[in-house]
Amino acid sequence: MDALLREIAAVVGPGNIMTGEDVAQRRVDWMTGAPCRAGAIVRPADTAELAAVMRLCHVANQPVVTHGGLTGLVHGGEASPEELVMSLERMTAIEEMDPVGGTITVQAGVPLQRVQEAADDHDLHFPLDLGARGSCTIGGNISTNAGGVRVIRYGMMRQQVLGLEAVLADGTVISSMNRMLKNNAGYDLKQLFIGSEGTLGVVTRAVLKLQPRMASEKTALVSCPSFEAVTGLLRHMGRTLGGGLGTFEVMWRNHYLLLTEESGRNVPPLPTDSPFYAIIESLGVDDEANTAQFGKALETAFETDLISDAVVAQSDAQRQGIWDIREDIEGLIQNLAPLFTFDISLPIPDMERYVNQLEAGLRQGWPQGRLVVFGHLGDGNLHVSVTVGSNDPEARRAVEQLVYAPLSELGGSVSAEHGIGLEKRDYLAVSRNPEEIALMHTLKRALDPKGLLNRHKILAPET
Amino acid sequence: MDALLREIAAVVGPGNIMTGEDVAQRRVDWMTGAPCRAGAIVRPADTAELAAVMRLCHVANQPVVTHGGLTGLVHGGEASPEELVMSLERMTAIEEMDPVGGTITVQAGVPLQRVQEAADDHDLHFPLDLGARGSCTIGGNISTNAGGVRVIRYGMMRQQVLGLEAVLADGTVISSMNRMLKNNAGYDLKQLFIGSEGTLGVVTRAVLKLQPRMASEKTALVSCPSFEAVTGLLRHMGRTLGGGLGTFEVMWRNHYLLLTEESGRNVPPLPTDSPFYAIIESLGVDDEANTAQFGKALETAFETDLISDAVVAQSDAQRQGIWDIREDIEGLIQNLAPLFTFDISLPIPDMERYVNQLEAGLRQGWPQGRLVVFGHLGDGNLHVSVTVGSNDPEARRAVEQLVYAPLSELGGSVSAEHGIGLEKRDYLAVSRNPEEIALMHTLKRALDPKGLLNRHKILAPET
Repeated sequence: MDALLREIAAVVGPGNIMTGEDVAQRRVDWMTGAPCRAGAIVRPADTAELAAVMRLCHVANQPVVTHGGLTGLVHGGEASPEELVMSLERMTAIEEMDPVGGTITVQAGVPLQRVQEAADDHDLHFPLDLGARGSCTIGGNISTNAGGVRVIRYGMMRQQVLGLEAVLADGTVISSMNRMLKNNAGYDLKQLFIGSEGTLGVVTRAVLKLQPRMASEKTALVSCPSFEAVTGLLRHMGRTLGGGLGTFEVMWRNHYLLLTEESGRNVPPLPTDSPFYAIIESLGVDDEANTAQFGKALETAFETDLISDAVVAQSDAQRQGIWDIREDIEGLIQNLAPLFTFDISLPIPDMERYVNQLEAGLRQGWPQGRLVVFGHLGDGNLHVSVTVGSNDPEARRAVEQLVYAPLSELGGSVSAEHGIGLEKRDYLAVSRNPEEIALMHTLKRALDPKGLLNRHKILAPET
Repeated sequence: MDALLREIAAVVGPGNIMTGEDVAQRRVDWMTGAPCRAGAIVRPADTAELAAVMRLCHVANQPVVTHGGLTGLVHGGEASPEELVMSLERMTAIEEMDPVGGTITVQAGVPLQRVQEAADDHDLHFPLDLGARGSCTIGGNISTNAGGVRVIRYGMMRQQVLGLEAVLADGTVISSMNRMLKNNAGYDLKQLFIGSEGTLGVVTRAVLKLQPRMASEKTALVSCPSFEAVTGLLRHMGRTLGGGLGTFEVMWRNHYLLLTEESGRNVPPLPTDSPFYAIIESLGVDDEANTAQFGKALETAFETDLISDAVVAQSDAQRQGIWDIREDIEGLIQNLAPLFTFDISLPIPDMERYVNQLEAGLRQGWPQGRLVVFGHLGDGNLHVSVTVGSNDPEARRAVEQLVYAPLSELGGSVSAEHGIGLEKRDYLAVSRNPEEIALMHTLKRALDPKGLLNRHKILAPET
């Protein structure tokens, strides 16, 4: 690797190659704090430098791992001492803003929050939003097809990307920096690089679509008497708010109770005895009209027994108080450790039965086991947390079986929004059939025949 | 081919193979009425039959062309006597409707309008809409990534597809019938088959996303004093209507004048002396609120000189009267024949200069030439119609050069929504660079190594 690193230094400058202790200082897993183990970290200044480095690596058969903001949850950033990391941390420019066309052009290393803020500055809105907004990067959002809390209204990251540029394993630059909403000139190549977790190419730049800003945002926490009421409420809100339904998040009682009364971590805005709680947000341009419409929608829901109780946030602090319960991951970890967390999706009508069966299976195997469920219900996405009092690999495998196995029959997914990485690779076949996986290998071979990009992530080596 | 047809007959039944005069009776181009020239038309009943037929064709090195509703505009349905047509006309089932999850599962041969109606029946909305709705099929909409008049609000067909099933050239069935908004379990294979015009696989079934129904739809025709006012109006409407802006269509004066006063075909709701006219639609759930909001938005636009005049449709008939001007393709053909039509996209801020240069170039080459421009301006998409008084191939080439050449520098596209097919294949390089085209060939070779699917469409044979 040393000879190669000298060649790379000639491209990026010696100051932009990190080795030894500098590499180990970098944390590749924010939950465990695991250190980076790569042979070195290379920090190119732009696409041309990255492409030149990739060409050198390709000739030298050098495997590489790409780093964005390192906020992933499936070990996608892990690298072995035999691998080189390409970090996009210096590629953080906002290159262009077009307020008329509603687009922003950026380098891939720019943090999500900076794009959100740049849009706000022009009275526009970049709708992708998730907890890691301050550190996750646009390149990482694209590579993992990030989701978050506004998918029900605006779709996932894939829907926000108009154009992109990526570097292939051999250093070829694929520049598809389209800026228009409509462009059907041949294959839509950018789709290859969205959600493929860096295994088909390194995303270097992107053109993102901006949305009209919705100045009014009303938030309610409601309790529902049954799962049937939850799904009825989802339909009702879709019908009465139309395109204004911005969020539909649901907490099972086990989540709401744990993170309010039981742990004392948050004040419950509503009593804790209902089986389900939903956070609903209504987006609008005019605050008065939005407030009235949302109030009417909640009133009707109350009258038709879809909700048993409701509180509408009257201030930012109250809104934050509601979201704090939903987003108290620290509270989950503290109270349930050792903890296994899952990010699954399945058809909404099947969710109640699925969770009940999971709970029953858990009780059977581990009488002390606990289950906590919340999620982006409107997107079909549940985050399931399980503790069985043990962290050992055997227990993990057994719980993974419980959680994943039923998804196959239901047409569910072992990864709704976090990706596959290394963590879920062995379960890919739960959600994808042999023909699909074979076609994924076909694509991987076609674009990265030497298998140098993010090795063994998503797809196990072919036997 | 006869031996192969006998094998195929054993799969689909002899009654489902059309030959001879039956083939020639079928029109593959609704503008010219050109007859189908294929060796035969095969009509499989379902995916299994189609897959079996494709396997037979693959073994026999038999090229195939897929037919949906035959409403395309770029000769994608053309077939030579050496080719077999797979027609999905018998695969028209609506298999499942899930009103809770908001999905509909269909076979690819179902017409678009039937899906729209099925959604309406459940108080939901399928937003893709275009003139050919009665005859175009969902499979065709997917294969061509259809656009239409609601893209500014809901995106193109790609955004409506949650899952799909396709048959590869060798008969392998790739079934990715995902029903959830979120599914990041490995590569999103369905993207390969959306917009690739049947060159990578035959789409057989799909799961489509349905939207909340917007019961209130207000339509206005406005006149704008300048192109700057048009783009200012687009931003203003985005800002004030938020997610309610459903349509932003623009007609240059040459279009509006021709199809009203000049031809006498339509009554002009507004005087014909403005340089630009826009059709704007505001979507909402509550009619009273939507009407008030739209009225206010138009008022402000008037006060700030973004519009010089406006009329809001007060009835379905008035709304239709406005759209009739925009959609009077028959009037265009009658008045401008012989006519060349184009479907391009380019960044909105560049449009005025582009059209002016095009007009100047046209005048220079053909003093009697005429240009008519209208389009989905909010999507960056213009439909340009040109007549130079001649239909010969040399004139066509010269006009194509005029229209397409400037797009390269502007980052525009030779196809916004119609696709490439055969018609625009020689201009693909205007909008896509050599690295992109090489990667398209890589994909084509990986998925269809024998080159049997929709031969020579999109991509010219490699030399």
